[in-house]
Amino acid sequence: MFGKDIIIDGLQYCKWDKEYFKFLKSSGVSAVHVTLVYHENARETLTRFAQWHRFFEEFNEYILPVFSSEDILKAKAQNKVGIFFGAQNCSLIDDEIGLISIMRQLGLLIMQLTYNNQSLLATGCYEKNDSGITRFGKQAIEEMNRVGMIVDMSHSSDRSTLEAIDISSRPICISHANPKFAHNGLRNKSDEVIKALAKRKGLIGLSLYPFHLPNGSDCTLDDFCKMSADLADMIGVDHIGIGSDLCLNQPLDVLEWMRNGRWSKIKDYGEGSATNSTWPKNVSWFNDSSGLYNIYKGLINYGFSENDVKKIMGLNWLHFLQDGLKAQTC
Amino acid sequence: MFGKDIIIDGLQYCKWDKEYFKFLKSSGVSAVHVTLVYHENARETLTRFAQWHRFFEEFNEYILPVFSSEDILKAKAQNKVGIFFGAQNCSLIDDEIGLISIMRQLGLLIMQLTYNNQSLLATGCYEKNDSGITRFGKQAIEEMNRVGMIVDMSHSSDRSTLEAIDISSRPICISHANPKFAHNGLRNKSDEVIKALAKRKGLIGLSLYPFHLPNGSDCTLDDFCKMSADLADMIGVDHIGIGSDLCLNQPLDVLEWMRNGRWSKIKDYGEGSATNSTWPKNVSWFNDSSGLYNIYKGLINYGFSENDVKKIMGLNWLHFLQDGLKAQTC
Repeated sequence: MFGKDIIIDGLQYCKWDKEYFKFLKSSGVSAVHVTLVYHENARETLTRFAQWHRFFEEFNEYILPVFSSEDILKAKAQNKVGIFFGAQNCSLIDDEIGLISIMRQLGLLIMQLTYNNQSLLATGCYEKNDSGITRFGKQAIEEMNRVGMIVDMSHSSDRSTLEAIDISSRPICISHANPKFAHNGLRNKSDEVIKALAKRKGLIGLSLYPFHLPNGSDCTLDDFCKMSADLADMIGVDHIGIGSDLCLNQPLDVLEWMRNGRWSKIKDYGEGSATNSTWPKNVSWFNDSSGLYNIYKGLINYGFSENDVKKIMGLNWLHFLQDGLKAQTC
Repeated sequence: MFGKDIIIDGLQYCKWDKEYFKFLKSSGVSAVHVTLVYHENARETLTRFAQWHRFFEEFNEYILPVFSSEDILKAKAQNKVGIFFGAQNCSLIDDEIGLISIMRQLGLLIMQLTYNNQSLLATGCYEKNDSGITRFGKQAIEEMNRVGMIVDMSHSSDRSTLEAIDISSRPICISHANPKFAHNGLRNKSDEVIKALAKRKGLIGLSLYPFHLPNGSDCTLDDFCKMSADLADMIGVDHIGIGSDLCLNQPLDVLEWMRNGRWSKIKDYGEGSATNSTWPKNVSWFNDSSGLYNIYKGLINYGFSENDVKKIMGLNWLHFLQDGLKAQTC
């Protein structure tokens, strides 16, 4: 349906199985940034990678692993979906800077410095006080820069994000979040952060997760396109991608793992609440395999040029990865 | 000193540091099979790999990592020493078959199924009873075959070794051991094992560790060459390499770690004894950076053809790795 266009979804965490890989292929997406871990430590992360090795072995009709931007073009050419891995947290490096290059070698291309809470590296967006990038965090960013692992600040708070943008010698991303001006949620990003990100050639992936959208589950395609247009007016179209945050077919215990990990004795509801504790209802136009195509058409109909829509739907991510994944030394 | 010849040492576990990398370079060796772990579990193995990432970053004037046989030629062309990794045990995959492909991806090219003791996969050469390859062991061998990780039975006992040779669809190695006919040590290999290995195109690396040599630390270069010639008479020259088992500059606690790991409450002395508990004294002709060259010249003087010496000193290992490291599926 997308012809020769490269379509990239900058964040998903669905129930990965044969059915879903078929779904992905039928959606026309060329590559997906897959969340490998939320709170898993180094050892547990090996098991996650091992599970994906098995998927690549068993379902190579549908998917292939992405280690560089060239692999995305290869996936497109072979009519498969490229899978590239990111972590929503730094838990997978334990307390050891040497594990950054190890995880990069295993194919972790993107790492968030925090997931909502304070981490060893930075402050998450749910904390009251943001003390910025830590001593370990500064060295971790420099090491990530060196090996070509992309810094992602989707779940971080403002000061930490601004400092990460500043410390990093390479552009960083906010793989999945929306502007606060469209919906004032804890996870969405201030104008200041978005402008600083774009100024340093960073990328923001627009989220389809209802808690991040204007009008939540009732957000219309038009609302989404307006948000996109307003953002493009603010920072230009070259810094915008899609990071849908799609979590299809996942049971409630996965949501509870995301929110509570092993850190919380009192049940945490994230952006939900005790009376609204389950998965939010997806918007109607992004709930099946035609979702990305709906957005593509929606943006065109809203008045974006075809070239700009191609950038937002994939080319910006592709070029961002092209630059960001190269090691600084060999 | 070796001109264009490829020289490969099929096993070392020295104190790895800048001085030793200089030593290696001056020895003329093209590539070394480095023991990464003895008893380390999966998590600890990540730290071992991370230490080597650091070495490759800091000492890239001397060494480079080897993932395929082509990297050995690259090392030779760049006048560096190629480093390829093996494990003396299967401890690093914990109890998880999925970790075989993970460790292979990180650069573990060779894995022993046992280190002296019974493991989850097979029986070690110090056990009284050898029950052969286990249920997990059979699947592990098949998985190693699939991903191109070489099976090494240096520290395994006879029945397990014979079964591994039989189960494996690809040639296996005994990276470092000598024939029992030259010295009847627990670690050395019976005629039956050596013949079965060679029949399936396997490789045996001759050891310079005094406990494996005829006359121990007093073994002469002539004794060593005679053993090599007798072995070549038995199985042909194509199945013989060097696996020196060189352990230079290591403190006693490393020897104790090798022998006792975490499994033994009663101190185990391996091939030594309570009254002979420390590192054995190396033979005089293999105790400095001219060791490999001494063997090269020794074999020529003993009457081997130059072509055969080149095979034993490196080409056999090179070709064995060339075939053994290719994944069966892509």
